[in-house]
Parts: sequence; C-alpha cells; structure tokens
Amino acid sequence: MAKDHFESSDAIRTAQPLRFVQSVTLAGPIRLESGGILPDVTVAYETYGKLNSTADNAILICHAISGDSHVARHHAEDDPGWWDILVGPGRPVDTNRFFVLCPNLLGGCRGTTGPSSINPATGKPYGPDFPTTTIGDMVEVERRLLDHLGIGRLVAVVGGSVGGHQTLTWATRHPGRLRGAVVLASSPRLTSQALAFDVVGRNAIRRDPHYHGGQYYNQPHGPGVGLALARMIGHITYLSPEAMNQKFEADRLHPREVAIEFEKTFSVGSYLGHQGMKFVERFDANSYITLSLAMDLFDLGGTPEQLAASFSPAQCRWLVLSFSSDWLFQPRQSRDIVNALIRNHASVSYCDIESDCGHDAFLLPDDFDRYGEMVRAFINNLGPAPVAPGVEKDELPGTTSIFHERRLDYDRIVELIPPAASVLDLGCGTGRLLARLKLQNHRRLVGVELDEHKILGALRRDLDVIHADLNEGLRAFADKQFDCVVLSQTLPAVKDVAGVIAEMLRVGQTGIVSFPNLAFHKLRRMLAEEGRAPRAYGWLKDKWYDTADIRFLSIADFETFCAEKNIRIRRRIALNTEAGVEVATDANREADLAIFVISNEATGR
Amino acid sequence: MAKDHFESSDAIRTAQPLRFVQSVTLAGPIRLESGGILPDVTVAYETYGKLNSTADNAILICHAISGDSHVARHHAEDDPGWWDILVGPGRPVDTNRFFVLCPNLLGGCRGTTGPSSINPATGKPYGPDFPTTTIGDMVEVERRLLDHLGIGRLVAVVGGSVGGHQTLTWATRHPGRLRGAVVLASSPRLTSQALAFDVVGRNAIRRDPHYHGGQYYNQPHGPGVGLALARMIGHITYLSPEAMNQKFEADRLHPREVAIEFEKTFSVGSYLGHQGMKFVERFDANSYITLSLAMDLFDLGGTPEQLAASFSPAQCRWLVLSFSSDWLFQPRQSRDIVNALIRNHASVSYCDIESDCGHDAFLLPDDFDRYGEMVRAFINNLGPAPVAPGVEKDELPGTTSIFHERRLDYDRIVELIPPAASVLDLGCGTGRLLARLKLQNHRRLVGVELDEHKILGALRRDLDVIHADLNEGLRAFADKQFDCVVLSQTLPAVKDVAGVIAEMLRVGQTGIVSFPNLAFHKLRRMLAEEGRAPRAYGWLKDKWYDTADIRFLSIADFETFCAEKNIRIRRRIALNTEAGVEVATDANREADLAIFVISNEATGR
Repeated sequence: MAKDHFESSDAIRTAQPLRFVQSVTLAGPIRLESGGILPDVTVAYETYGKLNSTADNAILICHAISGDSHVARHHAEDDPGWWDILVGPGRPVDTNRFFVLCPNLLGGCRGTTGPSSINPATGKPYGPDFPTTTIGDMVEVERRLLDHLGIGRLVAVVGGSVGGHQTLTWATRHPGRLRGAVVLASSPRLTSQALAFDVVGRNAIRRDPHYHGGQYYNQPHGPGVGLALARMIGHITYLSPEAMNQKFEADRLHPREVAIEFEKTFSVGSYLGHQGMKFVERFDANSYITLSLAMDLFDLGGTPEQLAASFSPAQCRWLVLSFSSDWLFQPRQSRDIVNALIRNHASVSYCDIESDCGHDAFLLPDDFDRYGEMVRAFINNLGPAPVAPGVEKDELPGTTSIFHERRLDYDRIVELIPPAASVLDLGCGTGRLLARLKLQNHRRLVGVELDEHKILGALRRDLDVIHADLNEGLRAFADKQFDCVVLSQTLPAVKDVAGVIAEMLRVGQTGIVSFPNLAFHKLRRMLAEEGRAPRAYGWLKDKWYDTADIRFLSIADFETFCAEKNIRIRRRIALNTEAGVEVATDANREADLAIFVISNEATGR
Repeated sequence: MAKDHFESSDAIRTAQPLRFVQSVTLAGPIRLESGGILPDVTVAYETYGKLNSTADNAILICHAISGDSHVARHHAEDDPGWWDILVGPGRPVDTNRFFVLCPNLLGGCRGTTGPSSINPATGKPYGPDFPTTTIGDMVEVERRLLDHLGIGRLVAVVGGSVGGHQTLTWATRHPGRLRGAVVLASSPRLTSQALAFDVVGRNAIRRDPHYHGGQYYNQPHGPGVGLALARMIGHITYLSPEAMNQKFEADRLHPREVAIEFEKTFSVGSYLGHQGMKFVERFDANSYITLSLAMDLFDLGGTPEQLAASFSPAQCRWLVLSFSSDWLFQPRQSRDIVNALIRNHASVSYCDIESDCGHDAFLLPDDFDRYGEMVRAFINNLGPAPVAPGVEKDELPGTTSIFHERRLDYDRIVELIPPAASVLDLGCGTGRLLARLKLQNHRRLVGVELDEHKILGALRRDLDVIHADLNEGLRAFADKQFDCVVLSQTLPAVKDVAGVIAEMLRVGQTGIVSFPNLAFHKLRRMLAEEGRAPRAYGWLKDKWYDTADIRFLSIADFETFCAEKNIRIRRRIALNTEAGVEVATDANREADLAIFVISNEATGR
C-alpha cells in the first residue's frame, strides 16, 4: 500500500525551519527569460558527502513543486528528507562517494528568493510583482550556485516531475556541465489535462477574495482556501486511482478525525481537506502560482522533430524512468523524450516501471527495489571512478539455447557483424550478445527489451537499453539508423512477425535473424511418427500450451516469407547446435538453428 | 475529434426556457430516505411519441447531473436535445414506436422541485434547508410520475452516468415495472478518485464567501466563482486525456477569445473558464451540491457479494455499456455490475466500447455507430411487439471451418448438449452455435466474445453476450454455474490454455472443447515431407506469421494435457470434416478435428 510521503515531511516542515540549510546571495542580478530582472538572488541549499579535490564527484538533485533543499536526512536523528530512499550513505545516490547538492527553487518559499521575499525596490514582498519565472531561470540560478561552489562538471543531474524538467534543461542548456541525466516521472511538456488542473488551482487562489491581488502578506488572512483547493486538486493527480482505492475504499464513509473547515462526509474528503490545510501552513500561494506556471510554460516541443531539435545540444548519457500508473506525467511522455534522444543518437536507457503508485511512485518505497537499482547502476557507470561492474548472472542455462547451453549462434552472429558497426539488438535480455560486441569496440550498441529485470541486468553491464514491446514497432528509431539489427531467437515470441521484420529492415541496413528450425529432422519425427506438437523451442521444458513461443517456422518457411515480402537473403547459416557444427547440405532437415542476414531488396547494401 | 456537446446545449439553455416542458405537482408529500419530507413536489418532464392504448410502449430516460428533460428535439426546428443521437424518429430509441418520457431530477433546477424552489414552510427558497436527496428519492419521484401518467410496466429504463445510477435503482427497487435496463458509462458507486473531485467542487462552492451559507438567492452575488471552479473540475473529468489533447494541443498557448474572469494563459484554461461561467448562468449552486452529493452517496456495495445482494431483486434484462477511455466511471466498474448480474443468473449483455471520448462518449456521436446499434438491437428485442430479428450474416465462410464451410462440429456439439441445459459459449462470435441451441429451448444461453462487432451480431440474435478476454479468466461466473461450457475452435487462439480450461471446468459441470488436430496426416506430411509449418488452422489463407492461432496441438497432445491436469475425458469425437465422417480408428492421424467432452476428475458427473 502506498504510504503518504507528504504526511511525514509536511508535519515536520511546519513545525520547524530546516536546520542544515546553507544559503548564498549570488553576485550580480539575474536576468530572467521573461525580461524581468532580480537584483539580489539568495539560494538556499543543502549538501551531503564531500566534494573531492578535483571537484568531479558532485550530483545535483532538483526538487519538484512542493519540495525543498532537504532531500535527505544528514544523520540518523535528523528530520526525514523527501528522497531518503534514493540519497544517503550506501543509497543509489551514495553520499559516501558523491557530493550531493540540493537547492531550493527560484520562486519558491523555502529559503531561495521568491514572491514572498522582500523586493529591494519597495521594501515590501514582491507578491504579484515577482516576475514570471521559467524552468530555465531556475536552472540558471542553480548554475550560478555551482559556479560559486567551484563545481565544474557534474556526475549527474537527477530529478523527478518538475525536477525532471530542470534536469532536461540542464542537459540541453549546459551540455558540458554533466555526464549523466536521470529523469524520473517527467515530460517534455505537460498534457492539456495536467495544464487544466493547474489552471483550476491557480484560479482558485486568484479568485479567493483574500488573495488581495497578491499583496496579502500584511493582511489578516491570505488566500488559504484557494491554496488548499489547489493542493487538494494536486493531491488527486499525484495518486493513481488504484492507490486512492487502497487508501480510502475500506473506510469510505468514515472521515479521519481531523479539524478541518472542509467537507468531511467522506474519508477521502477529510484526507484532502487535511492535506490542503497543512499545505497552507507551510507554502506561499504566490510561490505556488509562480512554480506551477513555470511548470506549465515548460515546453520542449509537441512533435518528434521539435523534440529532437530541443535535445540536439545535449551530450550526456541518459536514464529515463516512467511509472505505469502515472497519469499526470504519462509514460508515453517519457517515451517521447526517449524517442527524441534515440533519433539524436544519444546514449539513453529507458524503463517504464510497473507501479500502482501513480505520479508519486518516484518518491515512494513501493517500487524502489527495482528502479532504485537502475539509478544506482547508471550512476555507478558514470564515474568519476567507475565501480567495476558486478559479475552479472546470465540468463538461466537453456533459456535461449536450443539443445545445449553454449550460444553457438552468438559466436556466429558476432562474426557476422562488421567491425565498428552500430548494432540494435531486439529482445536483448540482460545484454549478453551486446556485452560481447562491446569488447570489440563497436560504434553504437543499443538493446530493446520488454522485461524490467533484464533491463536492470543490461544497465549493470553499462549498456543502453530501451524498454519496448517489439509488436508495437520501432517508431523511436530512424530509417537506417543502425548498420545491423539483430533478432536473435526472439522471432518465435513475436506476434506481428511481418511488422517486426519490416521495422528492423527500415531501421537497419541489414538484419540478422536467428530462429529454431521447425523442420529439423528430430522435430519432424515428433509430429510425423509420434503425432505430437514438436517441442524444442525456447526452454526445453515448455509445452505446447505454456511456451512463450507462438510462431513456428522452418528454414523453408522463412525463405518463402522473404520471397513474398521482397526481402533479400544475403547470407544463410544453418547450424546443428547439438553437434556444434555448421550444416552444409539439406539444411532444412539437418539444422536445428538458422541465422539469416537479410536486407531490403531495394536498399540493401 | 470529440465535439463539445455542452457548447450547443448550454448556449440555448441560457437564452431561453424549455418550450415543451410539462409539469405536474404530485399528490401528497414525498418522504425522503434521509428522513426529510417534501410536502409538494413538482416534476417537470417532456414526452415524445405516443403512449399506446395498453400503455406498454413507454421508455423512461434518466438524465445525468447537469442534464434536463429536453432529451431530444420535438421537431426539426426545435432546440437540440442532449441525446438527439439516441432518441427520435428512427433512432435506436425510436419515438415512432415508443412513448419516451424524460423528467428533470428531484433536487435539480430545471423545473422539478429543488433547493431553489420555494419552501412552503418559509415562503423562501429552500437553499441549504433542502433535505439530503438520494438517487432512490429521485426514482421515487419518477415512479410517482409514471403512476400519474398511467404507465404500468416500462419497456425499458435508459440512463448514462448518474442516469445509470437511477436505472440501476429502478431495476432493483421496482423490478416489476421494467422489462429492460440500459446502463451506459455508470457504476455501482463512485471511485474514491471521482468522489475526491466532487468533494473539491463542493468545497469550492461552500467556501465561496458569496455562498452565504446557502441562502444567496436574495443576495447581489451568488457563489459563482465556486460553482464555476466545480464545473471546471467536472469538465476535466468528463473528457479523456486523448480528447483533451485533440481539443487543445494544436493551439495550446492561444486562448479562445472569450470574456472570462479566469486565467487565460492557455487554450484549455480559456475553455474551462468559459464553460464554468456559462454553467453559472444556467445552474443553481445548491442543486449542484444536492445532485453531486446524491451521486456520491449512491452505493450498491464494494464487494461482489454485496453487489449480488443489491441486484438480487432485479428481474429485467440488461444491456450494460462502458467506454474504454472513461476514467470517471471506469469500465471495470461496469464489469462489477455485470459480474454481479451474471452471478445472479440475470439476463445481461455487456460491451466495453473502444473510444477516445472519455466519460462523455455516451453523449457524443463519435462511437455511436457501434453502441447505438447495440441499444437498438437490445430494445427491439424487448417488445412490446418485437421486431423480427434481421437476417444476420454469419462469419465469413471458412473463418471457423477446417477444410470447408459446413460446421460439422456444430452439428455434433449441439447433439452433445443435454436437453434444457445451461450453456456458456466461450468465443461465441455472432452467436451461430447459441442461436441453434436457442431453437431447442435450452435453459440458459450465454456467450463470451472479444470482438465488438460480433457482439452486436449476437445482440441482434437476441442472445446474452459478455465482452471479455478469455485469457483474463471467467471471474464473473460462479462455480458450476453452467451445465456445459463450450470452447469451439477458440483454443488455438488462447494464450493461457491451462488457465482457460481450468476456468471452464470450474464454471461448468462439463466442458466441450473442439480444435483442429495438428497430427492429421495431411499436416504431418507438410512438415515431414515438405519441411514446412503445417497450415490448416483457422482461415486457410493464414500463414505461420499472420494467423490468429498461437497454440498448436494434436489429439494425443490434448490427451496428455488432460492426464497431466487430472482432467477426465468423458467423450472424444474425432471428425474428418473434409470427408464429412466420424473417424473410428487411428484418430490422431485420420481426424482433422476433435471434440472432447471433459470434466474435472473429482467433481465431474
């Protein structure tokens, strides 16, 4: 069950100020993208771990709309941080090894200059006169802070949600300043639905009579009702419907015992009212307007072409993670980011984490055992002194072999790939084939895999791996983006065979397809003599009714298929893997495994 | 692209009163479920078509939260109705044939008694003193109206969303008063997420300083801002994210030219502000609170057992329709209704309509070509003088045959089913087998089908058909609910073979499974002699790479499977459909099609 991470942190934040905050007033004014100028900007931040002598072990954490600099506790007795699961000694962002920096956002109300700060021109709070602020402005302030601290190049920038927007901006505006970008539960821009919720929230604040045009700081009441309503709407969008059911269905009509001035008929209502009122105690309404508007104005483009252009300056490596039940920052939006990066030949890995926790998933422990290790693996491989990759267990013996464990087909496929080629491996598993190719210094290696756990394995091998279902096509990849596209024993598990083969030949100059041969004499005999469905696909123990394989073909079948589809067969290798030999004659009977090198008739080299 | 149905109707409703409204003041007080009493209740309603002399051609339409009695136009020049696509001459609810009645809801503000009506005790509007009203109270008023009009038994009650809540209540409270219930985009109760949105909306109204504790009628300003905010939130939930993108992504930052006192930075914001302000002109805030609270308090239960108990009084036939992108009243909630009805042995059909239009789908023309015809078919079969079912085209020749068109297997399956049995047909298509069984007066016939178009075909044959994916199990059905469960040539297309067979034997006393025999001598020869994947499954034209079939088995394989799973084979019929004969010896070689009658070893009769 999803815990309410706001519960604990809110309680503490209200009670007392942050104890470990440092702050600095930046030298010189900040010129904002809106044209406004802020003469003095103070930045509040917290740091963890030690900056090394070469100042190349720093990681910047960017917080989301209602977060602050207290990303993690500084010691066991310290107040909890909002991302304790990720940041700390021995954690994926390991403060024993890295110097971690987390500043409060420009426009916020937790120590960094924002609408509630004093405007030096008037001696009063900025209020509604605080200039429109963008994500780019926030990143500019963060960059000035890094300069002040003497940090040149970051190991990584890490952020979720609006923190992800900052991370994307870092990578595109200051490509020389980071080696890696970790983007969780984020998007190139908000959906219209997400914008709509924010609009209603801001309207609730601005139309609250106590808003007083934004200058409510010296009034007896501020726009607490409006801000609470905005927060209630926000809370609904942070949770998935499933998480809400888990929290509130059991005691649907039994409101929690909280003193609130909002409707208490339903359990969920008492919760929202309570959250709304607590938020009012710790957050400034003008900051909420400023930060949510910055989020809503963030826009890297709405088309693949615009996104590719936006990302073109980036040079870092990328890890992009989405969460399946996140309907505020939807997985398809993360895929838009990933697809643009792929189009740009960037080094990117992606996984959509199966989760019930909605947008909040990136802050909660529920799914952390999986995605936390992905972040660890990715960051470890960035340096400064890369941790030696752990010995990775290969797939279970037999999972991809035909009659024995040795991958004779891998040996041959590695030989078939020309030197310095770029290779896309469809159904790459934990990356065994790609890892072998990596030893040979190939130009670019990318894997596509459906299984979350195997993706983690591939990340640990320091490979680029993209979470995708082959049956949905390879839209992310451009025409002829790779020299070779490999489909190694994955074909039998593919539903849309013709579509996948067409896609691999669109994306690759050549395709390498390997599959078990249904017409191998032993298999023929099973049907012809025993009257039983041949059983030699995938795992030997699988049966006709529970194998993952759903397509069965012989060498002759594949050759007919290629002829029908105008696919040119450039080479055919027939293997008897049992005997460990290549088969020269009568391949459709004597070979248990076939490898075809294919290309489009028209375009193949 | 989804049209905005609120756009047109709102514009008209604001401008002028409804012209065809009739109204009646019910004799005697209405005692509400909350304990309150309303001494005089006026009901506003509209009617279409003519009530016949036996008063048995009436259909009641129940409207949703912001609807009214004007369900359809009364003539070509009349103002548009909110459900013109469904109701009218020649429409699915055909006013040439049926007498259609649509009353405004109790608690509303469009002619029926509500919070803005004068409280006879005080001479002032009820305002906040209007008693808590339930869906049951609304239905009670509708019942009294029927009595007044001399209508005994309805052909059907039809409603979407909250109209669906009323329909469910009609069927369970007054089972003798309707033959059929058509429930669209509804639920047994709201999700916690949907409740949450309503709570925020009501808070926005009640905490608006112009609410004046609910007695704002004689004030210069009412709680217009709060009501507009509530309406904005509602609008977001009525649209799917896809529909919102279609509406607003192209001109994201170009707000529409509307005079609104709300944020206009974004296109979606200008739309919501405009909708909110228009709603304020035509709707009463207290009515909104009353009706949304009635909806939120509606609760037929949260467990399958509670739902089955709630539905147990119902006697009518049911058509339940949900829409795939509806996240406010989710398809799984309609399935909860359907599952409870199935558990109760009710006559029910269900389809989840593939749609991009969200909750509004049931009001929009986008998907109407499919679900409108389902409503027509269902209502036509209810009477009073049933329309002769149209001649239904069977599946394409060959789609389910082995070597020729005649369904020899159907002949044999029909013989295998004992007289007066209850039968569940898994993968029933348009219901050809069930239609044959229907001629023989079987006790209960139900089909399960995945394809929307085939479901329409089965509805036209007056069959009960449930939209479901077999691979997800048969949770809707109780243990041993059917005498026979048939899986006729659907097995090869099933991914989870063991699961589906286990489910059929849980749900049925016996199972009848037919499938093509992979070990038929012609197929053996294809592999053994030609070295090619046998091709004789499903459509003959299908090939190994594009057939819908993914499981291939011989008679011997199935027998081994049954032995492994402790399934008792009660009878085996082996057919050579090409020769049109039953095969007596060497079936695994000589038969192209097998029919097995199976049961669980322990429980089978």
